[in-house]
Amino acid sequence: MRATVMYGPKVVQLESVPDPVIQEPTDAIIRVLVSCICGSDLWPYRGFDAIPEGGRPMGHEAVGVVEEVGSEVRTLKPGDVVLMPFAISDGNCEFCREGLTTACAHLQFFGAPGIGGAQAEAVRVPFADGTLYKVPARESGRALLPHLLTLTDVMGTGHHAAVTARVEPGKVVAVIGDGAVGLCGVLAARRLGAERIILLGHHPDRLELGRIFGTTDVVMERGEAAVERVRELTGFGVHSVLECVGTEEAVDMAVQIARPGGAIGRVGVPHHAGIPATTTFYKNVIVAGGPAPTRAYMPELLPDVLEGRMEPGRVFDLRLPLEQVAEGYRAMDERRAIKVLLEP
Amino acid sequence: MRATVMYGPKVVQLESVPDPVIQEPTDAIIRVLVSCICGSDLWPYRGFDAIPEGGRPMGHEAVGVVEEVGSEVRTLKPGDVVLMPFAISDGNCEFCREGLTTACAHLQFFGAPGIGGAQAEAVRVPFADGTLYKVPARESGRALLPHLLTLTDVMGTGHHAAVTARVEPGKVVAVIGDGAVGLCGVLAARRLGAERIILLGHHPDRLELGRIFGTTDVVMERGEAAVERVRELTGFGVHSVLECVGTEEAVDMAVQIARPGGAIGRVGVPHHAGIPATTTFYKNVIVAGGPAPTRAYMPELLPDVLEGRMEPGRVFDLRLPLEQVAEGYRAMDERRAIKVLLEP
Repeated sequence: MRATVMYGPKVVQLESVPDPVIQEPTDAIIRVLVSCICGSDLWPYRGFDAIPEGGRPMGHEAVGVVEEVGSEVRTLKPGDVVLMPFAISDGNCEFCREGLTTACAHLQFFGAPGIGGAQAEAVRVPFADGTLYKVPARESGRALLPHLLTLTDVMGTGHHAAVTARVEPGKVVAVIGDGAVGLCGVLAARRLGAERIILLGHHPDRLELGRIFGTTDVVMERGEAAVERVRELTGFGVHSVLECVGTEEAVDMAVQIARPGGAIGRVGVPHHAGIPATTTFYKNVIVAGGPAPTRAYMPELLPDVLEGRMEPGRVFDLRLPLEQVAEGYRAMDERRAIKVLLEP
Repeated sequence: MRATVMYGPKVVQLESVPDPVIQEPTDAIIRVLVSCICGSDLWPYRGFDAIPEGGRPMGHEAVGVVEEVGSEVRTLKPGDVVLMPFAISDGNCEFCREGLTTACAHLQFFGAPGIGGAQAEAVRVPFADGTLYKVPARESGRALLPHLLTLTDVMGTGHHAAVTARVEPGKVVAVIGDGAVGLCGVLAARRLGAERIILLGHHPDRLELGRIFGTTDVVMERGEAAVERVRELTGFGVHSVLECVGTEEAVDMAVQIARPGGAIGRVGVPHHAGIPATTTFYKNVIVAGGPAPTRAYMPELLPDVLEGRMEPGRVFDLRLPLEQVAEGYRAMDERRAIKVLLEP
């Protein structure tokens, strides 16, 4: 089959690899219907994350069809349409039972050594019962696929940012970052009842989608000027900050604009050392978040997609056949696309 | 009257100063029944915090009797016995109404320029209605005074650590620091229903009091050995960490021993730059806490003291007349005393 492999900064290509096969009785093989490129895939693409010798299989988000299951898989059968979240979880450990699937005792990530990626025609999925989430059969029409796909990562991650930032009805919320996760964060904050949603970003097309998703105020300033602008808009700052970038600048800004007693939900993978200890302390600001347990959020979020109450798939503004995956990376790297959907 | 002033590291003395007078119509003057020395007073005493030119009036915890009130004070009258928390709060702003009195729009601290300290015979209390909390008259017997006094700072602070670390019935809790706040944190965790309370400290006498307060396990190791020991005791770590020290080492330890999805309640004044961004992220650990709104916790905690359900005043293991305040500082600095109670 064909699969995407990254060999170094800006070196990513589709190539022929052996078809995945069942290795453990708890595995499933899924044929990929749609997958996509993640903002986090740009970290190694831009040379900020190391790439293992021999290349790294890419892609960790997919909607697929089950092709084959191992002998111990109980809840899935060939033909089932499934959501494949970015994290592999056993579904049985104490963390999975608590809903923190990204702390699973058997946590693994797609694209890790020995595990394939989703920017491919098929993937082996370990702990298939725990990892995959079945979509009701009659609800898997092609028009829904982009929206479903977001539940495997970006929409679940935006929701996690909102949940850990304690968004509730009536709250004033800021979302830092107008990438796909930030935009999904806007959608999640609106869904949870935020009264006001301030989106901080710099790209007019993304901010426009943010308005459609529920943004009430846009802040395009940077650094201290952005902090000042949020203070003008809010007085003491915002109750909830969804930090969807992961840089030191973004985290410092989150700390600055949080209201005393407010909360920051971090979902941008941190590429910096420390969270300011003193400012967060004196403001009694709560810092939370981390890798989103998107698998655990699927039961809550899926009905909103199936019943058309939200359309997170609008973050895919470029749709390419899998063979053009390299162009997909270029488009995201050059910010010509918010997020690229790939069809094998 | 006599009041305590600190002039530099290790230079603290009782001296004659003008009697406090009503300056604003919302002020009250209280005569101090008991006050005490705080662990945070040792930071300037040891040269880690700057001391203003001309000296700093010391002391921010007191139980007192109202002597005089300004024309706009509504809820207090001369003769009332009151708790004086370390922070001055107006009682009316949006933060006070939300219970975060340490983010009050008029927040000030005792000992700041123009405001006296409590290691004195009397104190002027700004925003007396908001700041002071009245104790039912018949409940102010002298035997209760040490316990009542802890509600102005250390017991309220230990409670804040437990609340922000999300202690709940059945949870496994670690308390870092066996000072007065850490010991009160043990009491608070037990009060909130913790199943297991691990106290990390190095002083046998303090750890013994910790056992009386509810500690189930003691860890006397330091650094990595302490982390290993907590892991041996708990497997994945603890649900809640009460960080009652404020050093970089203590915060790093808190992050290490927190279970994925767990929470850290910081109440040690931070004397370090950053909270580890990556470890907290990958573990989805919540970092919360800050200056405790002890005024807001008084209605909840006072009945437990009045009705004898907890005796946090046992942290006072040295009781001195106010004229021996300098000896009190020495005893705490040399760790001969956990916490020193002063009687004018």
